[in-house]
Amino acid sequence: MANIPDHAKIVHNGILFDVFAFEQPLFDGTTKTFEMVRRNPAVEIIAVVDGKIITLFQKQPGRETGYYSLPGGQIDPGETPIVAAKRELREETGYEASELTELFHFNGTSKLEFHEHIFKTTNLTKKTEQSLDGGEIIEVQYSTFDEFLQLARDPKAAIAYELKMTMYEALLDDRVYHEFKSKIFSS
Amino acid sequence: MANIPDHAKIVHNGILFDVFAFEQPLFDGTTKTFEMVRRNPAVEIIAVVDGKIITLFQKQPGRETGYYSLPGGQIDPGETPIVAAKRELREETGYEASELTELFHFNGTSKLEFHEHIFKTTNLTKKTEQSLDGGEIIEVQYSTFDEFLQLARDPKAAIAYELKMTMYEALLDDRVYHEFKSKIFSS
Repeated sequence: MANIPDHAKIVHNGILFDVFAFEQPLFDGTTKTFEMVRRNPAVEIIAVVDGKIITLFQKQPGRETGYYSLPGGQIDPGETPIVAAKRELREETGYEASELTELFHFNGTSKLEFHEHIFKTTNLTKKTEQSLDGGEIIEVQYSTFDEFLQLARDPKAAIAYELKMTMYEALLDDRVYHEFKSKIFSS
Repeated sequence: MANIPDHAKIVHNGILFDVFAFEQPLFDGTTKTFEMVRRNPAVEIIAVVDGKIITLFQKQPGRETGYYSLPGGQIDPGETPIVAAKRELREETGYEASELTELFHFNGTSKLEFHEHIFKTTNLTKKTEQSLDGGEIIEVQYSTFDEFLQLARDPKAAIAYELKMTMYEALLDDRVYHEFKSKIFSS
């Protein structure tokens, strides 16, 4: 939804967020300074093992309570989304993915440009142990498709907002349910 | 969900966004610089007239297509949320609200502190015409409760994310439906 205009000027170059400002023409012919934020892009992976979806229960520094998520994280500078997805999956779960398919590419809300790439894979081999940063605590769990959809309803589940909406739609609409399920589990 | 720690330092003081940085202790005893964004707080109003909810269809500069929303907008510096809600309702719809009740107070996502105050009112008198900025185009519409709930399903509808989740829950769960409906329509 949000893409920062090419002519915008960067006013803050940060670690996780960059801020941009630009003159936006209004409908009455005047202009106004608008501000938008770009957040570093991220990936999430819907990874299927033995007919179940890998979900995580995480405890992270700075967050008071544990929360559910999919494997995923920030794309590092220079990484492609697919390389980041393979790396995050390996670090957080120990699984190595030989093939990944991009299911969705979201790009944020009206004032926030945030590219989130959602991949799926059914080709996993367990090769390594988790390798976590700074004492992260991540528990790997295995959910049925129906259990996975219920995660959308947990306000604390850290799942891309638009992906949650697709999960809600699958709960409301039988056609979406079957299409989404078949996209995830087809090899 | 997100409240920026008191000891965080402001690294960008902007128009719509402020950026903060702070040293976050990790679980292994080391620290890491974390960055969070604060967006100016906003209000949205669920306003009932003759048994229907006021919804808006807006065209705004910088957004390619029209979109649905509730009346609402940014809280101006020095304003309380309730004063901002009354002002936005008056500017965008011409209705004057004599009494407003706060239904929800959301506070953003894990890296974004964004306070959104959701009010409801059933006490409206039409007093003035719309007074819009810079040639904004805002069409006032009247929706049944069921039509309003369907707006949650429109990815382009600009409604607070957590409010959309409550609307989805009302579509899925009869108990939530009736509780939410009664909260909105009770005077």
